[in-house]
Amino acid sequence: MSSVVSPIKLRRLNAGDAGFSAELDALLAWEAVANTGVESTVAEIIHAVRSEGDKALLHYTNKFDRRSLDSAAALEISRAEIEAALEQISTAEREALKAAAGRIRAYHDHQRAESWQYCEQDGTVLGQKVTPMERVGVYVPGGKASYPSSVLMNVVPAKVAGVSEIVMVVPAPDGELNPMVLAAAAIAGADRVFTVGGAQAVAALAYGTETIPGVDKIVGPGNIYVAAAKRAVFGKVAIDMIAGPSEILVVCDGKTDPDWIAMDLFSQAEHDEQAQAILVSPDAAFLDAVAASIEKLLPQMSRRDIIAESLAGRGALIEVASMDAAIELVNRIAPEHLELSVAEPEQYLDAIRHAGAIFMGRHTAEALGDYCAGPNHVLPTSGTARFASPLGVYDFQKRSSIINCSPQGASQLGEVASVLARGESLEAHARSAEYRINKPGKGG
Amino acid sequence: MSSVVSPIKLRRLNAGDAGFSAELDALLAWEAVANTGVESTVAEIIHAVRSEGDKALLHYTNKFDRRSLDSAAALEISRAEIEAALEQISTAEREALKAAAGRIRAYHDHQRAESWQYCEQDGTVLGQKVTPMERVGVYVPGGKASYPSSVLMNVVPAKVAGVSEIVMVVPAPDGELNPMVLAAAAIAGADRVFTVGGAQAVAALAYGTETIPGVDKIVGPGNIYVAAAKRAVFGKVAIDMIAGPSEILVVCDGKTDPDWIAMDLFSQAEHDEQAQAILVSPDAAFLDAVAASIEKLLPQMSRRDIIAESLAGRGALIEVASMDAAIELVNRIAPEHLELSVAEPEQYLDAIRHAGAIFMGRHTAEALGDYCAGPNHVLPTSGTARFASPLGVYDFQKRSSIINCSPQGASQLGEVASVLARGESLEAHARSAEYRINKPGKGG
Repeated sequence: MSSVVSPIKLRRLNAGDAGFSAELDALLAWEAVANTGVESTVAEIIHAVRSEGDKALLHYTNKFDRRSLDSAAALEISRAEIEAALEQISTAEREALKAAAGRIRAYHDHQRAESWQYCEQDGTVLGQKVTPMERVGVYVPGGKASYPSSVLMNVVPAKVAGVSEIVMVVPAPDGELNPMVLAAAAIAGADRVFTVGGAQAVAALAYGTETIPGVDKIVGPGNIYVAAAKRAVFGKVAIDMIAGPSEILVVCDGKTDPDWIAMDLFSQAEHDEQAQAILVSPDAAFLDAVAASIEKLLPQMSRRDIIAESLAGRGALIEVASMDAAIELVNRIAPEHLELSVAEPEQYLDAIRHAGAIFMGRHTAEALGDYCAGPNHVLPTSGTARFASPLGVYDFQKRSSIINCSPQGASQLGEVASVLARGESLEAHARSAEYRINKPGKGG
Repeated sequence: MSSVVSPIKLRRLNAGDAGFSAELDALLAWEAVANTGVESTVAEIIHAVRSEGDKALLHYTNKFDRRSLDSAAALEISRAEIEAALEQISTAEREALKAAAGRIRAYHDHQRAESWQYCEQDGTVLGQKVTPMERVGVYVPGGKASYPSSVLMNVVPAKVAGVSEIVMVVPAPDGELNPMVLAAAAIAGADRVFTVGGAQAVAALAYGTETIPGVDKIVGPGNIYVAAAKRAVFGKVAIDMIAGPSEILVVCDGKTDPDWIAMDLFSQAEHDEQAQAILVSPDAAFLDAVAASIEKLLPQMSRRDIIAESLAGRGALIEVASMDAAIELVNRIAPEHLELSVAEPEQYLDAIRHAGAIFMGRHTAEALGDYCAGPNHVLPTSGTARFASPLGVYDFQKRSSIINCSPQGASQLGEVASVLARGESLEAHARSAEYRINKPGKGG
């Protein structure tokens, strides 16, 4: 804790400067590098698993995870083993996982969509039937990046949606598994767990093997091979968004303890060197104070090297002319996490158009939302909050349109459809509609 | 109309036969052929439009659509020209388009999601803020496959969602445009229309050029180049599903006029040679009667060659043991369009788990839904109704999570987050949460 850390060169920008817009673009620029090597390796793995099933799955698992299994059946973790993991973790951890799962469930319960229908005057009924997906795959990374909180955040919404079977995959490099991850699977309600990972796990979930059941949708984070495999099977199954590095935008009015803000920035930066932590404030002296807190607190952090690289490479302290200018910046950046560390944050809510999650007030640290406030921590990154949403129950439900025309309704609609179909030169469409037009002496 | 057509060899299957499952798999098999030539051409076009903007867009448009424009500004159709199209079509067509748009709007109004929030006992507020996307691109195919109904079905839901600017692109090969398409754009409320198409139009919408504004999401059908371009820009912007050939599954109890059913099958088959029309019935004699109707009616159809090829290649008449067996087949196929041409269709609704749209009763021809019943005609194809939904207002809205912790709520959540963060070795997360724990003599 007392090692010497050289001062961070943390970027300081002023939104009023002439070159600011270009500087901001450069700061935000991030694009997944298309790597042809990765893509062709992944294509090969998918092809093998699709055509050879368990045999290929076992081969790649033994090879990449340094295991020596001789049957695919051994890839499954039994129900008893999953339940046993609950006893392998501390009481505090077990209770924390249960408390988090309970809150996540309560929040997501509000997201469940219901079927609806309405009846028109002539008796025609229109509606929408909402049903859960039948089987969903949840990818959980293994090794160091194996996060039990991710298990809760991915499994609980699927469970709330009413998915019949949730299949979790998690690689066990050298046969090792994090008991907290298994305990989270037990608490969240994963139905089956297999120790497979990488592109081979994604391929198995997409196409099914003798042992792994094929699913309708695959969610959950993974490395570059997992991301490439998800992109490749998109269309055969549904997938969640492919995430970029995690980011936070903190907007502060200058009245929060600068140590709190420094630690909030660290909590994003400690994820990895590509993570992005930006602070925006109209108070220049406060930005100085936070910079001083960063210098003071950084040497105490166990992940200080990652934090320092992330802050130096992608972090920034940005001075703005006013809170209005700060909110304008929010909408331009469309951050994954937005922390409004200000007095009366409600006043800004209407003006905020793009953000994955909004953490309001000085007490609402992003870390509370990451684990246990209730909302999902799987959020749109890299500005995709312009068009994407947090992972939710809606990601595991689907809709069917319902149309039930009365004879009179069909007759009237038939007249309209006939004109439009003939306008598109689709004669069979027109004649099919015309059969339903009520003519004297003709019934159905 | 009197030309001689050779009898169709329409596949006849029995769900009780030993080989049925394999036969059905073969019948349903359809996969977009990955075409490396198309993908590399598309990658080149996207790169050019992204780096050179209007210059590249104009070059490809002049080349592929045989035009000779010298400025990108000439690609835009003025508001006056769009409005003028309303006068170039017949009164019947204009009224039909307006009636369809009105019904589509009324149905989609039911789909709009609203923001919500709730307050916990300690004052913590959790919620979800729903906002429309700001700018959306609608791709409309040009030439022969230029369907005004598609304009209504893609533009109206975006409009109902509250999208600020809807940018429509439609190629004008040799400078020609279908006035029905422009009229539909006027009625549906497209804000701007540009005569560009192909991968170059998708690239322009995804990245923006000097003339074409960049959008947040691109929807609408297109040829193989358009589909490949949408797949390539997925992630930079949102896209709708990439559609396979259109299909219908008709389930009939044997009591509907066989001519009606034959024409309903034709209305799907006339789309293109890859379209799929399948009839399922427990009544073998009825299947014979429909086969006879097909033979009788086919020679009358203007698109008989396409219909014949589609039915012979991908169509089928399937006999099942019972209506229960028919519904089981429905769930296995997960059809884009399901026509329940039966008495009291409501009794089967609960048992149907996967279908894009359900057309209930003898009077509800698919063609009525294609044009004007109200629900969307953009539906999940090729079995993707297992996980995908009709295009809807929800495709143009996005959500932001809201978390506003009271000091007491933050303190309690901080305890839980601290345990979980330390379990994940994320120390900065833990300390950020711990700052919010209420300790005697420490405030925020």
